[in-house]
Parts: sequence; C-alpha cells; structure tokens
Amino acid sequence: MEVGVGDDAAVLRPTPGRRLVVTTDVLVEGRHFGSAFSEPEDWGWKAVAVNLSDLAAMGAAARWLLVALTVPDQASPTLLQRLYAGIGEACEAFAVTLVGGDTSGGPALSLAVTALGEADRAVTRAGARPGDRLVVSGPLGAAAAGLALLERDDQPARELLGRFPGLAAAHRRPRPELATGMRLAHAGATAMIDLSDGLAGDALHLAEASGVGIELHDAAVPLAPGVAEAAALLGRDPAELALGGGEDYLLAAALPPTADLGGVLDCGRFTAEPHRRVRLTPAGPRPLAGLAFDHFRTG
Amino acid sequence: MEVGVGDDAAVLRPTPGRRLVVTTDVLVEGRHFGSAFSEPEDWGWKAVAVNLSDLAAMGAAARWLLVALTVPDQASPTLLQRLYAGIGEACEAFAVTLVGGDTSGGPALSLAVTALGEADRAVTRAGARPGDRLVVSGPLGAAAAGLALLERDDQPARELLGRFPGLAAAHRRPRPELATGMRLAHAGATAMIDLSDGLAGDALHLAEASGVGIELHDAAVPLAPGVAEAAALLGRDPAELALGGGEDYLLAAALPPTADLGGVLDCGRFTAEPHRRVRLTPAGPRPLAGLAFDHFRTG
Repeated sequence: MEVGVGDDAAVLRPTPGRRLVVTTDVLVEGRHFGSAFSEPEDWGWKAVAVNLSDLAAMGAAARWLLVALTVPDQASPTLLQRLYAGIGEACEAFAVTLVGGDTSGGPALSLAVTALGEADRAVTRAGARPGDRLVVSGPLGAAAAGLALLERDDQPARELLGRFPGLAAAHRRPRPELATGMRLAHAGATAMIDLSDGLAGDALHLAEASGVGIELHDAAVPLAPGVAEAAALLGRDPAELALGGGEDYLLAAALPPTADLGGVLDCGRFTAEPHRRVRLTPAGPRPLAGLAFDHFRTG
Repeated sequence: MEVGVGDDAAVLRPTPGRRLVVTTDVLVEGRHFGSAFSEPEDWGWKAVAVNLSDLAAMGAAARWLLVALTVPDQASPTLLQRLYAGIGEACEAFAVTLVGGDTSGGPALSLAVTALGEADRAVTRAGARPGDRLVVSGPLGAAAAGLALLERDDQPARELLGRFPGLAAAHRRPRPELATGMRLAHAGATAMIDLSDGLAGDALHLAEASGVGIELHDAAVPLAPGVAEAAALLGRDPAELALGGGEDYLLAAALPPTADLGGVLDCGRFTAEPHRRVRLTPAGPRPLAGLAFDHFRTG
C-alpha cells in the first residue's frame, strides 16, 4: 500500500502477473445480524469474513478491504468504535489491510464491504465436469445449529451451547477458508463456491453454472460437533441443518478424481445428466432444492 | 475482465506496472439525494459519479465498479431498475465496467459504491509546495445554486433554472473530471482533491495535508454561468455559493509555477506560512474556514 485511508482514494501496488479478484457484500442490522445474539464487534468481524469467504471461493489470497458504513444518528458513540474493533480483529486474523472507508448517517446500521484479493488462477463456479468429486472443506451445520440454539435460549439449549462452543462461534465469527481455497485451486479444483446458503443450494449453483448433474450423498455429509445433539433437542433433521443451514462459510468444490488433496470431505459427485440434480437419501433420490436457507431475520 | 457479475467474485486483469487506485463512498436517501429534486436514475448516476470523482482527484483512469445496495421492502418494483439504469448510464458515460454487486433489503435506500482505477503516478493531497499555484478545473457554485433554486421553487427560481440548465444538472448529474485529473497529474500537479465540500474547505484540506499555507483570492474565483444571478435572487453572497457550496465535483490542484497547462483557472497560491490559511477578500484577509458545505438533508 502506498496511500491508505485519508486521501481521496487508496493507492495499491498489485502483484505483477496476478489476477485481481474483487467482491462486495452488504450486511444490514436485523437482516444479517442482530443485537439479541451477537455484539457489534461480531458484526464488524462478520462483514469482513463473508467478503473474504467470497475471495476464498475463488482460490484467491485476500489483500485489501474497503468499508462503507451507514450508522443511525441515535447510535451510541461507542458503536462505531466497537464495529471497527471487530473489523480490525478480522483484518488482523486474515492478514488484510483496511485501505478505505466512508461513513454516513442513515436510518439503520449497514456495513458494505469490498474485498480485494489476488490469484494466479481464479476458480469460478462454472468448471465442474462429469466424474468430478463434490468435496467440502469441513463438517457442516454449526452456524445454523448455533443460531437455532441461541434463538431457543432455554436451559438445555444453553447447556449445548456451553458444551459445543463452536456452534455459537460459527454464527458469530465465521472464519473464511482462505488457505483451503488456495489449496483447492492449486490442487486443480474445477469449480468452487462458499457455503452461504447451505450445501444443497450451493451445490446446485455449482451444477447449474457448470451445466452438469449432481448427486449429493446424504449419508456422507459430515456434521459439525454438536449438530446431531442440537438437531435432537430442536426436533429437526440433522441433514436439514447441514444441507439447508446457511452461513457455514466453508467451501464446496468440484475436484477431478485424480486430484490428490487431504483435508477435504467427499459428499457427492458431478454427473453427465444435467437434468438430474438430486440428494441420495435412505428413502431414495430427492430433488436438490427447497432447502435454501433464509437469512436470519428479526422483522 | 475475465469474470464479471454472477460468480462469488469478479476476476480482473490489472495493467502491468500501474498502481491500483480504489475508493468507496456511500450515499443515503434523505442525506445525499431525495425524491423532491431528482429521480432514481439521477441517484444511481450520482453514486457512481462521486466515486469516480475521487479517482479523478488522484489522476487515475477509472476502470471498474462494484455496487452494494440496500432497498426498502416497500419500494416499487421499478425502483431497482431505475437505479441501475442511472448506474449504467454513468458507467457508459465514463467508460467503467460494473463487475460486482450485492442487494439487500433494508429500512432505507442506500448505495455503497466502490470504484477501482489505475494510474502511473497517483497524486495525493499532501504534496503542495510553497509557491505552487492553486488552480481549479472549472467555474464554481453551480451545484449549490442549483439545489438552492430547486428548494426555493418559485416562479423566478424556475425561470433561472430554465435559463441556466447547468445549475440543476450540476446537482443531479455531476460529471467527474477524469480526463482533467489525468492531465493535471501528467502536468506535474503536486497535490489534488475533488470539490465535494466547497473550495474553501477543500483547499484547506490540501494546505493541511501538505503542511503549507494558502492564500485564496476571492476576486479570482470563477463563477459558473447563472451563479451570480442565483445569488442575487437568493439574497446570498456569490462567493459563499462558490466557496462554501459543495458538490461541484470539479478538481482543485497545486501546480508548480513552471507547469504549462491550459484549461485550468488560477485562484490562489500556496505559501511557506502554514499558520496562514486565508481568503483575500476586498475587506482584507479572512480565515479559510467556516464555509464547509452541509450536505443536502431532508430530516
């Protein structure tokens, strides 16, 4: 960085020969976060994390960040400090530099973040081929289970949240899988997406963009620690939390059968029948749709 | 552009050897624009234009744009189309490519835009030297006069707006001075800023960032067509509209005395006395502060 925050614009020095990868996402209070279950520091963190997760999904290294905030006039004077504290923690955790910002008064709190990264080869959603494995970068369902337990907030729910601290953390402080995204890109991933809507919907996005079919194997879908226990308490199907629960911010990728990469989990395969995009359940094949996660809403 | 809107992120190919120049600004309905005096197409245009103006102020060429919107749930279905129509018109007018976007529901309409450009040499606010000329890229006061006449909205005001269509246009459809910014950078400008707060405040920003003094010559400040007439009708000092009226989105720059550049207008000079930052008025020197423009507010 040659010029940072404080001038009309920031001046950056891109790495020669690399592609620039850019994305923007806006988070609004009451839609994407709320004061009932998380703190302003968490909101700042999350606004950074979800944008970096989009870079991770391209196989990019994260480098720079810009933040445009609207803050209600009646907000407490410390709110902005606390938001920026969370933004700063995320920048430090993921080694990105905040290079620009703007703040305006407005009727509600919103955080619009733009993240810039670099990649030698960016992986889109559109390259999956028949025969490719569908892999995920970790076990699923923690964010959805965490939010559901926070909403329930009775004694058994609080006990589970205490036993499995990863559940609330997955909701409050998602961790973009930047290193894994780069490993997947280098290992030859043909398509990649981050899990913001749940694996069912996001795997469908990969198949649609690539023009191929997909079989998701329910029995192979890995559950994060505590998700089975949360599902039992909540009276819900664990697969629903894992496949339809959004906001895990892990990665799903298509990987050629010959690719050699540890640390990823197989849960299906891409096929040559674009009309056939299904979950294989114990009760037989079911269409891979209708499980999309509706982002947290208070309204 | 290798990958545009629709994937997790856009993939861009920066020009080898050039600096990347990035900026973000958020505009909120009722703060930066309002339905009384302009249309949704104007809001989209303006959100793009004010960001490109920041690139112009660095001497950069504009290349790419990302837009993060929040839109009220009760907004008419055509509002988004009309906003994007204005965004598209501005992108075409200034040859930038929209490469990313996100839209969320929210309690108010806001547009957070991030603009990316490139420059061989970026001009900051901080390089002005004693003896440099203070120049502006055009005559001032049109946007402030236009807004004041639109607010007044009586017969004489409407008549003036009809005689001088540049006044309302300056408020509704500011035009970032991208070509002039690059010419100023190539001519050796030592510091530069875009006029979003009025020349008085923005020239002060240049002097402060550069650690020098400044003399602004009131008599030399060029007035845009119709500003003198508007000031007479409004009972205001034309200099107040020209110096304190914000949002002209012209450029102010420090230019070494030896620089040879046509088409810019001299209105002062930078000096070696950092404690002396003044307007030279017919009544004598006055401090160069207290004229900052308060952005349009409805609330």
